[in-house]
Amino acid sequence: MKFSPLVDELIQSLRCLPGVGPKSAQRMAFQLLERERKAGLKLADALSKAMSDVGHCQSCRTFTEESLCPICASNKRGQADTICVVETPADVLAIEAGGHFSGRYFVLLGHLSPLDGIGPEELGLSLLEQHLQTGDILELILATNPTVEGDATAHYIADIARRHNVKVSRIAHGVPVGGELEYVDSTTLALSFNGRIQL
Amino acid sequence: MKFSPLVDELIQSLRCLPGVGPKSAQRMAFQLLERERKAGLKLADALSKAMSDVGHCQSCRTFTEESLCPICASNKRGQADTICVVETPADVLAIEAGGHFSGRYFVLLGHLSPLDGIGPEELGLSLLEQHLQTGDILELILATNPTVEGDATAHYIADIARRHNVKVSRIAHGVPVGGELEYVDSTTLALSFNGRIQL
Repeated sequence: MKFSPLVDELIQSLRCLPGVGPKSAQRMAFQLLERERKAGLKLADALSKAMSDVGHCQSCRTFTEESLCPICASNKRGQADTICVVETPADVLAIEAGGHFSGRYFVLLGHLSPLDGIGPEELGLSLLEQHLQTGDILELILATNPTVEGDATAHYIADIARRHNVKVSRIAHGVPVGGELEYVDSTTLALSFNGRIQL
Repeated sequence: MKFSPLVDELIQSLRCLPGVGPKSAQRMAFQLLERERKAGLKLADALSKAMSDVGHCQSCRTFTEESLCPICASNKRGQADTICVVETPADVLAIEAGGHFSGRYFVLLGHLSPLDGIGPEELGLSLLEQHLQTGDILELILATNPTVEGDATAHYIADIARRHNVKVSRIAHGVPVGGELEYVDSTTLALSFNGRIQL
């Protein structure tokens, strides 16, 4: 048995959202129909606007509907000569929440993954090279994820930076603050020993 | 730090979906922007259509954009003189999946809950009484949930049915098939003893 065509289509369409299976999609559709018609219409509007108008920042590749994102457009960033390379826009948010970095970002929107057809061009590395060629950049901080792909991407970008004589660094990996040694995996522990700092 | 206005609005709007918090909304927005723009536009379209056009079936109150839902409009239902009363459209789907019931449904879209301002009128019980008054209905099967509110609602509707001299029954509650006695709660077990059937 199926519902009416429009309800069915709504349930099917909701499944494009990550982590939403058939049951959740049903629950979402019914909740919207029962109680949140206004919010549903607002979501429809926000979706269609965002899907059509949001593009990439010309400087850092994050999502924005302007040509430059708020961070790249701002002239209040103290360390404008430093670029932090991250994999996703959410990483930018995480770093900004800390408030300890005042440089600019470069968002790869992924990591090197030849099997999925994601090479240097897909990550916009030629755009990053253009930034390095200007000579305004003094340091590149690589904050890709500490995974095999993230590390490979970091090494690849480090090579590019060295070619342009730009200082390049990788964020430290080790025991997180508040973590307990006995629960930390051995690879992280090994990294934290290798990356020890003299007091 | 915030994202661009359109991206922010999309993330905020996604939070109207049940079970979606700030982090999931972010993940959904980025996944749609990165990889599923087409599906996103389709979702926007399905949402706006469903929110504006979907109303209630004039006969059973389930969601439909027609005046009658597919089940009420069908003339192939064997037990047209039996009405099964359920709380939500999803319950209809669950019962139809079994394929053992061929009557019609009546969807309350909730249960009696005076504190939330949900009384008999909000559950469309006057419409149900109209069905009973026609004299075409021989039996009312109450399949509201076995919760305090669901039971109260069932009792209330049973009184109405008796007033119209319509046979009324409640679905059996007891140990589910495949369940193990030792893990079944005591209330369910008590119900299964009370509802025992002579062999």
